[in-house]
Amino acid sequence: MKKSFGPKTLLYPTPVWVVGTYDSQNRPNVMTIAWGGICCSAPACVAVSLRQATYSFGNIVGRKAFTISIPSHNHAAEADYFGLVSGKTVDKFSVTGLTPVKSELVDAPYIKEFPVVLGCKLMKTVEIGLHTQFIGEIMDIKADESVLNEKGLPDIEKISPIIFTPETRSYHKVGGFIGSAFSIGKEVTPVKPK
Amino acid sequence: MKKSFGPKTLLYPTPVWVVGTYDSQNRPNVMTIAWGGICCSAPACVAVSLRQATYSFGNIVGRKAFTISIPSHNHAAEADYFGLVSGKTVDKFSVTGLTPVKSELVDAPYIKEFPVVLGCKLMKTVEIGLHTQFIGEIMDIKADESVLNEKGLPDIEKISPIIFTPETRSYHKVGGFIGSAFSIGKEVTPVKPK
Repeated sequence: MKKSFGPKTLLYPTPVWVVGTYDSQNRPNVMTIAWGGICCSAPACVAVSLRQATYSFGNIVGRKAFTISIPSHNHAAEADYFGLVSGKTVDKFSVTGLTPVKSELVDAPYIKEFPVVLGCKLMKTVEIGLHTQFIGEIMDIKADESVLNEKGLPDIEKISPIIFTPETRSYHKVGGFIGSAFSIGKEVTPVKPK
Repeated sequence: MKKSFGPKTLLYPTPVWVVGTYDSQNRPNVMTIAWGGICCSAPACVAVSLRQATYSFGNIVGRKAFTISIPSHNHAAEADYFGLVSGKTVDKFSVTGLTPVKSELVDAPYIKEFPVVLGCKLMKTVEIGLHTQFIGEIMDIKADESVLNEKGLPDIEKISPIIFTPETRSYHKVGGFIGSAFSIGKEVTPVKPK
């Protein structure tokens, strides 16, 4: 039996990503978002949604660029903090002691201490409602050597990204391996008619 | 030291969601996607990206509606299967024995056996590149009574949704609780100047 919750944003999993931007005085800022996702393979693009009231909103419009830094679970407190205060009044880098690094490819800073970072050029802006969606073309992704697997690719268990749950507002880790994608479905065989 | 991977879609976490639609003959179809995310709080909206070559693409354009059914890890094989074959040639419901249920609010079917389902009306279509993004207004979310917590809200550990990793192509479970959102960041105190 299913219970109805009406029109809510109860979806699982949602990510915890930290969006990095420069303001008009060239000061680096970061804010945490959970409303986002990959939106195209070619060109590689990612969408992030922000409210117009945020400081980062104006920064993205101004610079036409942003980064995403993916926090590990051991930086969950800093990631949460980045969503609690505004860059209008607080220098979030100096409070947390984390290090802004200018992306070589786009006009935005990423967080040095976070294991995976990507630089995006603003491709499209989509007005939706309370949130505006910024679609960024991914120009580069970088990952710490320490989170790579034996094939040299990023390993999600080593990255240990954070999962956000809307409404119940909790953060969770990534758990154990279930199976290989584009593979375990091959074992599905037609059920016999009842 | 960070290693550069170029313009790729290496992001973590990405979701595993099953998009449900009707075709022109009223046959229910489902396909699995990982390119998507919530994109607005008010109205509540979710974005899913599909290639034009998919059968579901035409169905969404035709009916201006879709559902998302969130699989638990124990349905990972079926969810993977839904991404391996096309509804053009296969009735995925009859092969897997899963049950299509018509949404009461939108013109699309969801999967009865999956713990959380949502019904969306197509609000916007955004051409990006290989993928087209469909933004759906969430009309209703339903969850099985068995996945609700003591406050009557969906519990991510009971839902046990699947996390997809691009490139390494694996499925993972959700792991343990890290902390409360909009809360653990309050403990962050300014670092002392070095």
